[in-house]
Amino acid sequence: MSIKVIQVGEKILGKNEDKAAENKKRLDGRKILTVNIMSSPGAGKTSLILSTIKQLSKKYKIAVIEGDVASSVDAEKVNAVGAPVVQINTQGGCHLDAFMVEEGLDNLPLDKVDLLFIENVGNLICPNNYLLGEDIRLMIASLPEGDDKPYKYPAMFADSDVVILNKTDLQPYLDFKEKAFRQVVDGLNPDVIIFPVSCKTGVGMQEWFTWLEGKIKEKKG
Amino acid sequence: MSIKVIQVGEKILGKNEDKAAENKKRLDGRKILTVNIMSSPGAGKTSLILSTIKQLSKKYKIAVIEGDVASSVDAEKVNAVGAPVVQINTQGGCHLDAFMVEEGLDNLPLDKVDLLFIENVGNLICPNNYLLGEDIRLMIASLPEGDDKPYKYPAMFADSDVVILNKTDLQPYLDFKEKAFRQVVDGLNPDVIIFPVSCKTGVGMQEWFTWLEGKIKEKKG
Repeated sequence: MSIKVIQVGEKILGKNEDKAAENKKRLDGRKILTVNIMSSPGAGKTSLILSTIKQLSKKYKIAVIEGDVASSVDAEKVNAVGAPVVQINTQGGCHLDAFMVEEGLDNLPLDKVDLLFIENVGNLICPNNYLLGEDIRLMIASLPEGDDKPYKYPAMFADSDVVILNKTDLQPYLDFKEKAFRQVVDGLNPDVIIFPVSCKTGVGMQEWFTWLEGKIKEKKG
Repeated sequence: MSIKVIQVGEKILGKNEDKAAENKKRLDGRKILTVNIMSSPGAGKTSLILSTIKQLSKKYKIAVIEGDVASSVDAEKVNAVGAPVVQINTQGGCHLDAFMVEEGLDNLPLDKVDLLFIENVGNLICPNNYLLGEDIRLMIASLPEGDDKPYKYPAMFADSDVVILNKTDLQPYLDFKEKAFRQVVDGLNPDVIIFPVSCKTGVGMQEWFTWLEGKIKEKKG
């Protein structure tokens, strides 16, 4: 008799991928462009979402799923700018998974949404291992974190479609070397698109808005 | 017949705590003050360690265990200032555990050490759940991460003995409200000691050095 070996990690990831595919089908059916936003704590995920809502909400309907270990401070900020939002508290969990996102989708007016942001838990280690049903995996790196982050968290950079390089307004006060940063990121992920921006001053944001709008239109077909 | 229920999470944490107690006994026997340093990626863990080695290495022998998901860039920096160092790569793991630290201890000249820094993986979620054998749990929060971090990662702030508030040199360019930050941290952890510093300019560092030296002397007895 053969012995059944269950690889727990693989099984959980497998189940998550099935659920992510289900979420994606549901979002594709409604032509909702979905962006999974990942970063360190405090790199600017909520700022990017708020700025983008302010810029694009006259033309497109935008909803947000907020993932946090605790609190609903980000969801309150999104709610204040008038976008439908669901807060998921992971109760200590390091990342969102597709099952949590399904619950989020159940609680959003999906028939009235063109663009969905999923703000993941602030963490550079695990979130990239869990597909959620997204079209675009976006990570934010911020200048104060240092230009060595791609060396230290390579998987996150390798698995992202887009890197937003935020807080460029602080460049004069930091030792961040953008060329060195780009070289490592390009080595890990030659297809990645990098947008240097300052969510605070707005510098560089137009390029991101234009690119994202192109993706929304592409998805609408 | 009763059914045996194994709580996997608890069991693993239990085993970790046993190993942490063993590590602590080993370090106590040699009167080595041990500091577990935790923070977000890029908040300044390595900078704090390097500045402290430069300041105190004439009087005390300092060793370092470096924890990272990947790479040995931090260990190379520590080696360059002449301190014994061991690099642990967690291969995707979110935190150090006591078993990894035991391996680190096996590879350090413990008979010649007064102060041991353990630089944990850059992460605000899991590291505080794993005792390593340390005397002091220290976390670094940096101004660019924002003053709302204690709301969003409360367990890390609640479980730390010391909070180093780093990158105060950037205050003029940020919206960070130190008073608001302190109020939440004090609420979570009334006994915590907060040192506002700039590892870059050195402002505030003398208070940290003096406090740490007091702890080293206390441990020596």
